[in-house]
Amino acid sequence: MIGATNIRALARELKLSIGTVSKALRDSHEISAETKEKVFALAKKRNYTPNPYASSLRRKKSNTIGVVIPEVADSFFSHAIKGIESIAQSKGYHVLIYLTYESFAKEQSILKEFNSGRVDGVLMSLSSETSSYKHIRELAKKDIPVVFFDRVCDAIPTSRVCTDDFESCYKATQFLIEKGCQNPSYLSISKRLSINHQRIEGFKKALDDNGIKAGPSQIIHCGNDNEKNYVVLEKIMKQKKRPDGIITSVEKLTTPVYLVCKNLKISIPKELKLISFSNLETALILNPSLTTITQPAFDMGKTAATILFKAVEKKNYTLPNENIIIASSIEERESTG
Amino acid sequence: MIGATNIRALARELKLSIGTVSKALRDSHEISAETKEKVFALAKKRNYTPNPYASSLRRKKSNTIGVVIPEVADSFFSHAIKGIESIAQSKGYHVLIYLTYESFAKEQSILKEFNSGRVDGVLMSLSSETSSYKHIRELAKKDIPVVFFDRVCDAIPTSRVCTDDFESCYKATQFLIEKGCQNPSYLSISKRLSINHQRIEGFKKALDDNGIKAGPSQIIHCGNDNEKNYVVLEKIMKQKKRPDGIITSVEKLTTPVYLVCKNLKISIPKELKLISFSNLETALILNPSLTTITQPAFDMGKTAATILFKAVEKKNYTLPNENIIIASSIEERESTG
Repeated sequence: MIGATNIRALARELKLSIGTVSKALRDSHEISAETKEKVFALAKKRNYTPNPYASSLRRKKSNTIGVVIPEVADSFFSHAIKGIESIAQSKGYHVLIYLTYESFAKEQSILKEFNSGRVDGVLMSLSSETSSYKHIRELAKKDIPVVFFDRVCDAIPTSRVCTDDFESCYKATQFLIEKGCQNPSYLSISKRLSINHQRIEGFKKALDDNGIKAGPSQIIHCGNDNEKNYVVLEKIMKQKKRPDGIITSVEKLTTPVYLVCKNLKISIPKELKLISFSNLETALILNPSLTTITQPAFDMGKTAATILFKAVEKKNYTLPNENIIIASSIEERESTG
Repeated sequence: MIGATNIRALARELKLSIGTVSKALRDSHEISAETKEKVFALAKKRNYTPNPYASSLRRKKSNTIGVVIPEVADSFFSHAIKGIESIAQSKGYHVLIYLTYESFAKEQSILKEFNSGRVDGVLMSLSSETSSYKHIRELAKKDIPVVFFDRVCDAIPTSRVCTDDFESCYKATQFLIEKGCQNPSYLSISKRLSINHQRIEGFKKALDDNGIKAGPSQIIHCGNDNEKNYVVLEKIMKQKKRPDGIITSVEKLTTPVYLVCKNLKISIPKELKLISFSNLETALILNPSLTTITQPAFDMGKTAATILFKAVEKKNYTLPNENIIIASSIEERESTG
């Protein structure tokens, strides 16, 4: 055990006991500030690195938090990670990012890894294929706190940070109807995710409040493969009674909509108005520029991390079973003009 | 130690020695296939999870590889990670992603963490602020193999996977000149990165070969903050002798170029031809669509991981000190029309 040997060497050189040096390195309140300073100074000089495995066995702390998300290609997640890092860095914690690529099996395998103490807490956004939650309940059994953000899990009693999915989709639908759409559609990415249900409910409620009857073609189910999504959308846009407005549930569905319209010579916004849940920086420079439902991604990540650290830093702290909702905003651009 | 207790319980139930069970779980060649099968079956049934910290002390293996990159908002990196995951998954390894956000201090802190055995190997793309390499040399001292990809480090003797930065930038410049540009500029993101030097050299060589004298305004240094980049670019595009062609070294510089041109009513491609190093999916649907130098991001990640695993899986294997180059390709679209 490299760690132990090094502590011994430090102790010998400082003429202190191994216990004192060890406690000083852990910033224990039992050790005076003066002694700690001496120990830190020599540890730095001798380039001492604690062995995280050895010290984890002692302290049961890894000083890392795990972030489990479906992907990083979506700019929502890259902004959310920045928010998470802003908190973790101030606490001196490392952030590990694990990607599920929307696979339930991979999500299970990653969480199984966590079960054995690799992280002190987990921030999580469900994969779109996740259909049961036993793997998440196992973390609770091992006292590893979990906070959900964005793609939350209602079945687990913990804190969830999300945006106002119902209201923002209601508003987006209302917005399209006010712009003249009589036959708007919603492009869905997963039948399973709670946030998608919320958005669909908001969409349906807005149709209902405006006396538009929701037909079976109103909600279009897409997947993770954009080539297949292109085929699905092309078929729909070739129909006689095609949508005159579209809300996409994730930013990646934006590209196939634009491409289908370009190739079928359907003008956006004249013949189709488009609004997307999206944090794409390029929304501004698309042809035409894209109206977005912009999620507070950075703030959602930051808030979720702030809540998680309450449980990471305090023993026997139970995270409240609650939803924290941070509102999205519509940014109007040419695609709904 | 949870792991040890569980192995003991398994051994008792199987009427085998603890050593045999332990070896079977590590898939040792000393144990028969039949016994291994029995052990695996019971381990699965009893939901046995090895304690990674305890077993790491024994095996000195974490079964994870670390990926250290500057950011994930650039689609080059999200594609490269997919390539890395494709190999790691087939080897049964987890991939940990650490972000430096272009900070040298953060890169040092992450690598210091690795020094103590948290990962079995490292794939790395330097931060744009990295100015010395002691922190990387420390990994070699601890026998943790490192392979670079994209933003490589020439000073460390190991394998580097990159694209043909000199040639692709030469070709892009030649391409702009053939399209009629007489005063092309190169937008640089970092003065320090080797790949940026290579690209600048390719740019200069093409100017030289075409008898264009490179003035001081030919190479424009941008930073990580796009609001500041906007101000820099606006000033340049307001000059009398402004560029008639631009090559951006990273995709994030694309948005400020489009916005400056939109706001100053400079037509792309009529008054300014633009080509970007970029893997943006939205390149196709920008206004106008963007000509790109598309890097083989997935293949670069996959190749780097394949090379790294040779060193991870074989003891005393020294990674060859070499550059593996995978060519980029120009995808012509409207922005250079």
